[in-house]
Amino acid sequence: MKLVTFTHNGKSRIAALKDGKVIDLHAAFEAKLVSEGKLRAAQIAEAYIPQDMNGFLQGGAESLSLAKEAVAYALENESAVRLVFKEEEVKIEAPVPAPGKIICVGHNYREHILEMKRELPPHPVIFAKFANAVVGPQDDIPFHPISEQLDYEAEFAFVIGTRARNVSQAEALDYVAGYTIVNDVTYRDLQRRTLQWLQGKAVDGSAPMGPWLVTSDELTDPAGLDIVLTVNGEERQRSNTGNLVFSVQYLVEFLSNLMTLEPGDVILTGTPGGVGVAREPQTFLKDGDVVRIEVDRVGVLENKVKRTAEVPVS
Amino acid sequence: MKLVTFTHNGKSRIAALKDGKVIDLHAAFEAKLVSEGKLRAAQIAEAYIPQDMNGFLQGGAESLSLAKEAVAYALENESAVRLVFKEEEVKIEAPVPAPGKIICVGHNYREHILEMKRELPPHPVIFAKFANAVVGPQDDIPFHPISEQLDYEAEFAFVIGTRARNVSQAEALDYVAGYTIVNDVTYRDLQRRTLQWLQGKAVDGSAPMGPWLVTSDELTDPAGLDIVLTVNGEERQRSNTGNLVFSVQYLVEFLSNLMTLEPGDVILTGTPGGVGVAREPQTFLKDGDVVRIEVDRVGVLENKVKRTAEVPVS
Repeated sequence: MKLVTFTHNGKSRIAALKDGKVIDLHAAFEAKLVSEGKLRAAQIAEAYIPQDMNGFLQGGAESLSLAKEAVAYALENESAVRLVFKEEEVKIEAPVPAPGKIICVGHNYREHILEMKRELPPHPVIFAKFANAVVGPQDDIPFHPISEQLDYEAEFAFVIGTRARNVSQAEALDYVAGYTIVNDVTYRDLQRRTLQWLQGKAVDGSAPMGPWLVTSDELTDPAGLDIVLTVNGEERQRSNTGNLVFSVQYLVEFLSNLMTLEPGDVILTGTPGGVGVAREPQTFLKDGDVVRIEVDRVGVLENKVKRTAEVPVS
Repeated sequence: MKLVTFTHNGKSRIAALKDGKVIDLHAAFEAKLVSEGKLRAAQIAEAYIPQDMNGFLQGGAESLSLAKEAVAYALENESAVRLVFKEEEVKIEAPVPAPGKIICVGHNYREHILEMKRELPPHPVIFAKFANAVVGPQDDIPFHPISEQLDYEAEFAFVIGTRARNVSQAEALDYVAGYTIVNDVTYRDLQRRTLQWLQGKAVDGSAPMGPWLVTSDELTDPAGLDIVLTVNGEERQRSNTGNLVFSVQYLVEFLSNLMTLEPGDVILTGTPGGVGVAREPQTFLKDGDVVRIEVDRVGVLENKVKRTAEVPVS
């Protein structure tokens, strides 16, 4: 299933996306319960398929299964109530608009590390973003006037579906709700003005995410997926998730040995070579640039860079 | 006002702490509304003084003012309903158990930087923790068997009370809900095994916080407060928030130029010299050690270190 968060008439909800149709999961489930004569339909719908992604993911496999039934019901009863929208009627938002944690992995594509004549790292490098960074697939990348060095980083990302603590690699994928794409937008000079990268990574709008969450029952093997980034149609990054030094499974084990992962936590697996700061000459993003990331079997995330007017205090 | 989060009969709520009394703010406000004959008392109480700290802080000055009235009502009507508990009847939790962001500042005490013969940094070093790290003043510091190098860091912390974006230093304190203490517990070898500190900082239970939130109408000047940390009664860190290179006001401006700060975000202002890893010989925490942090006009945060039994997967 392709799960999205969408906005219609100013209100955000979750949906399944199918053949250009946006199926409101909460409304569809409630309508199905009502059609079955359930008296507490609203409350049951709220319990199992709430309108926000984090709440839905907390319901785990049970909620996902109920969501599939709700989608089938909605498609069979399209005319009855307004459960299904056309894709162009709504705005698609980031699938997980407010992750509890956003954990990023640095230096994780094998061929890029080796071409830079570096040794493969013994441990993942991890750093953070916060939920303020998240924007959706139909949003612009805001280019705040705090730096001239705006850069892209194509990343394959996974979303936690079940609370995870000390989970082994063998069981890791059971804890993954699904996969999406994130552009780990980075202000390079801010990233590098201190040893800790956070200030160049945590700027508002620096984590375009989407276009949807592909559930892990549909995409069962996260390895072997091509990942390609273009700027204005020109290819800048290309690799394959099979080149990850630390796989999705490894990262679930590694991170869950350090901390409890919760449904809705988003983990970015790292970026291939070809970022703007490493090019000769260095090439940063400009107002109007279109950044497109495609990952096999996941989809396309495309955003335009837009200079913001706001003036920082200093 | 001293704001706490407490647990009674397994349910967590917010309260004001006064003379050893824990005053349930939501229940007190609802009871006051009922006594005034308000028909939608439950809904109004939920809107202005919900049971969780983040929701309460979103209400800003209006909710704080209503909370003060509710406290007065509860103390005058103690026998009527169960609005007031004795401190020993409840468990005091971290005042902000689930911050949206935890932002930490490194290298921020002037005298410690100078004694290390370093230059004062031109920009704050910032890094992250996540909400999984938070435990309360009556919890132990879990010592997970993933490292032998558990260390303390006494930190004076402030909590955002109003959404802040591009806020100047002159107006900064208007955006601060109040102050608390956080021990930035760190696994030193994990912190240092890669260039990014996050993995040594984000372990479950590595942010003991409390004992309460002192509201900024009561503590109007965050400078000039002594901060002292002891381990088993032996003094290890001592400084004064007047020695901060980057003040609370500076940090609000600096951070809000990078990102939108939200009510409930917690910012740790850095730690003075004297951490275990910098001692000769290096001295790390052990099972049973008692770490006590006192900050003038804020209070005392004291936690015991406790080895956990869990075995990490590897």
